[in-house]
Amino acid sequence: MEVQHRINKACIVAAVLAGGLALPAHSAGAARELPSKSTVADVIKDSKPSDWRPLNPENTLYMEVPGGRVVIELAPTFAPRHVVNIKMLARENYFDGLAIIRSQDNWVVQWGDADEKNPRPMKTAKATLPGEFTVPLKNDTRFTRLPDRDGYARQVGHSNGFPSARDPRTGQAWLAHCYGMVGVGRDNGADSGGGSSLYVVIGHAPRHLDRNITVVGRVVAGMPLLSTLPRGPAPMGFYEKKEQHVPIASFKVAADVPEAERSKFEVMRTDSAAYKAAVEAQRNRGGPWTKVAAGHVDLCNAPIPVREQP
Amino acid sequence: MEVQHRINKACIVAAVLAGGLALPAHSAGAARELPSKSTVADVIKDSKPSDWRPLNPENTLYMEVPGGRVVIELAPTFAPRHVVNIKMLARENYFDGLAIIRSQDNWVVQWGDADEKNPRPMKTAKATLPGEFTVPLKNDTRFTRLPDRDGYARQVGHSNGFPSARDPRTGQAWLAHCYGMVGVGRDNGADSGGGSSLYVVIGHAPRHLDRNITVVGRVVAGMPLLSTLPRGPAPMGFYEKKEQHVPIASFKVAADVPEAERSKFEVMRTDSAAYKAAVEAQRNRGGPWTKVAAGHVDLCNAPIPVREQP
Repeated sequence: MEVQHRINKACIVAAVLAGGLALPAHSAGAARELPSKSTVADVIKDSKPSDWRPLNPENTLYMEVPGGRVVIELAPTFAPRHVVNIKMLARENYFDGLAIIRSQDNWVVQWGDADEKNPRPMKTAKATLPGEFTVPLKNDTRFTRLPDRDGYARQVGHSNGFPSARDPRTGQAWLAHCYGMVGVGRDNGADSGGGSSLYVVIGHAPRHLDRNITVVGRVVAGMPLLSTLPRGPAPMGFYEKKEQHVPIASFKVAADVPEAERSKFEVMRTDSAAYKAAVEAQRNRGGPWTKVAAGHVDLCNAPIPVREQP
Repeated sequence: MEVQHRINKACIVAAVLAGGLALPAHSAGAARELPSKSTVADVIKDSKPSDWRPLNPENTLYMEVPGGRVVIELAPTFAPRHVVNIKMLARENYFDGLAIIRSQDNWVVQWGDADEKNPRPMKTAKATLPGEFTVPLKNDTRFTRLPDRDGYARQVGHSNGFPSARDPRTGQAWLAHCYGMVGVGRDNGADSGGGSSLYVVIGHAPRHLDRNITVVGRVVAGMPLLSTLPRGPAPMGFYEKKEQHVPIASFKVAADVPEAERSKFEVMRTDSAAYKAAVEAQRNRGGPWTKVAAGHVDLCNAPIPVREQP
């Protein structure tokens, strides 16, 4: 279903009618007709097995929450020290039994330790690390640039499955705050976070956070388990009472989970020709439903297809 | 709370810590310090009563759903015939007792009549109308342009409280599909919708729908009542069973509701100096939390402050 959620944006409202609202299909009136074109779903259907890569269990996290599993792909290229630290936190069972403590509409869902008085102790993992807000762009060897212009960055595109941006003038590359991206909560200090407080974007991409936060990965499955959580009543969407907290049953590195219990997802390779075709299908849709092709795709509207391994 | 949801994006993750995760506040490390600046919240606090306008009850809808009221401001400038028709549908009690039938993650929540076999009859209201996807830009006399560039349109800004776009070459103006915008479901024909099926954007702005759909307004309060609905399990987020439908107790024009029962919201005037300052506060944030000011604001990240009338 996750794939459906991600790729089926094409038909949006036409489907209303397929879904039970068949109104008389008059002539299209003044609107011009666009020729039919491949959709993102068509591109996926026609893709080759080599257009996909499985998730690496060493770079994948499973967060078990009420209703099921959230699968997070980590991006060590962009946040090497934080990825190591978060995996250490997971392996030292830091998050197990902690909770989701914040849900703010059109913004983020966040988890960690809400207990000020008796904070959960850490073992080997570090409480704080220097921020990894950007990396030297030479570190990001898998960047595929989008031709589309962007207001927040000189260049945008995808780095091995993650939306990213870069500035050749400063030599920096960074992950972009699109829907589903996971970042590290911090205080005012750039080095005041370490991964023990994490959040996921559940609304319109807050790109002004780019280069201000360490972004560590992306939710590739299970977003609805987070995005539909009741919004918190306290300022900034925090839950007010402990009873409102949403428990995290466990938070594990996929490699530590018996193979039979692992989720088997694969992600379309963002440096493949198939991916280029998928983005183009989103950028310039064909008829009959679409009347005006956008001729542009926003970085955070470029689909990154995920599916269960066939 | 709705206002909090909209304006408090500033502090995002810093607030984690205010909320109970006080980690040692080290020096900011390598990151430079930005001077402190007014936030959107500061701009609102310092605004004058004349910077705000109340909602016009004749252009406001109340949709009562489980948990409370969704308040929709209609945009007759951009969809004059649809606004008339939707108000007629409301006044003829068309939606009362119908339901929300679709919730698709990072996409839309949609309502209308799911009963194919016995569709609810209409009275005076029309089942279909010619699409109002764009209007002549001379009709939109309240446009305030943003200086920020946009990938989807030549010009973007706000038209009396609604995010909008325009193209001086074609002489067209249209509403933009930002979070919370309300549109009219249709079939393939440009004239196959009429307002009896409506949806609201609950994810990253699907701007490629701009100029393909009649957009009729914006949810100004109550978004969480829609955005947190369980996602539908059928393709495209439709609910599968009638029991999953979310009932609409009533759907009324605010002017038809006794004054004592009306919601008293006001919207910041988007042609005011205060609004310009609010957008600038979003575009270029000051320290101490922010380390890099974006220098840009995406149309759909420009806050449109709403508050209860003082």
